[in-house]
Amino acid sequence: MSTNNYVTAFAPASIGNVAVGYDTLGLAIAGAGDRVSARKTESAGITIKEVRGLDGEIHANLSVDPDHNTASIAAHALWKAHGDASGVELIVLKGVPLQSGMGSSAASAVAATVAVNALLDNPLQKPELLPYALEGEQYASGGLHADNVAPSLLGGLVLCPTSLLPDAWSLPTPKGISSILVHPDMQVNTAEQRRNLARSVTVDQWLAQQGYLAGFIAACERNDADLIRRCLKDVIIEPQRKSAVPCFDAVKEAALKTNALGCSLSGSGPGIFALSLDAEAHNVAIAMEQACRTMGYECQSWISPMTADGAYLED
Amino acid sequence: MSTNNYVTAFAPASIGNVAVGYDTLGLAIAGAGDRVSARKTESAGITIKEVRGLDGEIHANLSVDPDHNTASIAAHALWKAHGDASGVELIVLKGVPLQSGMGSSAASAVAATVAVNALLDNPLQKPELLPYALEGEQYASGGLHADNVAPSLLGGLVLCPTSLLPDAWSLPTPKGISSILVHPDMQVNTAEQRRNLARSVTVDQWLAQQGYLAGFIAACERNDADLIRRCLKDVIIEPQRKSAVPCFDAVKEAALKTNALGCSLSGSGPGIFALSLDAEAHNVAIAMEQACRTMGYECQSWISPMTADGAYLED
Repeated sequence: MSTNNYVTAFAPASIGNVAVGYDTLGLAIAGAGDRVSARKTESAGITIKEVRGLDGEIHANLSVDPDHNTASIAAHALWKAHGDASGVELIVLKGVPLQSGMGSSAASAVAATVAVNALLDNPLQKPELLPYALEGEQYASGGLHADNVAPSLLGGLVLCPTSLLPDAWSLPTPKGISSILVHPDMQVNTAEQRRNLARSVTVDQWLAQQGYLAGFIAACERNDADLIRRCLKDVIIEPQRKSAVPCFDAVKEAALKTNALGCSLSGSGPGIFALSLDAEAHNVAIAMEQACRTMGYECQSWISPMTADGAYLED
Repeated sequence: MSTNNYVTAFAPASIGNVAVGYDTLGLAIAGAGDRVSARKTESAGITIKEVRGLDGEIHANLSVDPDHNTASIAAHALWKAHGDASGVELIVLKGVPLQSGMGSSAASAVAATVAVNALLDNPLQKPELLPYALEGEQYASGGLHADNVAPSLLGGLVLCPTSLLPDAWSLPTPKGISSILVHPDMQVNTAEQRRNLARSVTVDQWLAQQGYLAGFIAACERNDADLIRRCLKDVIIEPQRKSAVPCFDAVKEAALKTNALGCSLSGSGPGIFALSLDAEAHNVAIAMEQACRTMGYECQSWISPMTADGAYLED
């Protein structure tokens, strides 16, 4: 690897929690993601040359200070553990909207680790990169949870309970089911949202939610769309968070009316996701967008197979 | 079916909660169970002719009052919904020790429904019997949970979240793993135990426990004994209940020292169960029994494959 050449990695956006599995389950989406390019430099340390948006312009809201960017924090953790005496320079191209509930900070952290990994003499296997990407994510979100980092890295649907980190498990994705993600044009601060959550839950809430999670996993293993429909619920976190997204109730109602299997916040919002049968995904997306605009929010949407790819190196 | 003839059903004891899934997961065991015989009578209503113990003697602690026995309550529910104008007489043979944490009340309720089902003109399928057996169990335990009834009926490892009842799902059981159940000679009152539990849990406890449950289900699907070992934990209920079983800590320590994959209370105890590789099950059982006796409690133990049969009609 010439020190003048950049390697570039793409890492997708993702749906955190997936309604049933707060901090425990994540789903990669297709069509939105961050790109990080990395090259070795002679002077030690991790630096960020620039952060750009999809329009090609320098990003207005993200710093090139390597102590305050999830990409450089993750890159630093990996390089410190496995790199050499040289430094690494990054270029970050943000494709995921900030504070969207779409795993923007995770996508940057994952893309950075995958790119920097390619600069190592002995690159690690993908699952081994998880702890380093997590360090970046932890800086941004204020908590140790992998429900964006793990699917962005590994693709598809990933089980990543905090109590079992840094391990994570790809779950079989049921056939014929798509995710729909609608992003209303507003921002929600994840770290602040987390601080505002209740610190305890009732035993009834706990049992209901873990029942839905267990049922959802069984449904995925069995390819059982009806059971997914019965289980795809969040009885604990969504009720606490939804008021921060004024269009949420209307968008959810629109999704369920068009036969979505379920609908909830993506991460801490404002992104709103639904799962539906492939054949109905387009209608669900249109209905969700329409409801969002009726409530006064411009929006953008993505339809993905549940098997969406994880991060990869670009040629 | 002649009205003079009895049909007899056997229903196995079971391990409730299976450590990771409070009220959500249950496991059938082999070698212990209740038998219920049923015959039609000319006079309407459900009656119990007698309740006997394994020694053949009339059971000292169980009533033949049909309003106070899980077998007759379950039988009544089924017969009322699907039976005819005649009555049903039951004989209950208790093989499961009372208040043992081995699903004694569930075994009677299940055996009764399976026997009475055979008296119907159009018998139901096994899974359809679950709601009726649950009515009996609910009388005994004071709560709606199927983690004993469902495995006693269906066999093996069963996922039965209260939020999804009356449906339940048999999970694949990992190959080469046995359950060991040790019953110290003492009694614990399930209904009282349930009333004493805390009504809320912290978010950290909830997330840890649902992570272990999700990991355990994934481990069963993947046949991954190491992951079972990491997940087979109860961080919420066991700490609250174990003081009612003075030998618990010693028995658990003995199980883990002999390489058990995990060990916890069976239901609300005093039964204590472990899972282990088949080849080590005998050693685990001996160590657990020994620890129990050292603490001053006589005991009995059962070793079962995780695929233990559910209830069945006897010839």
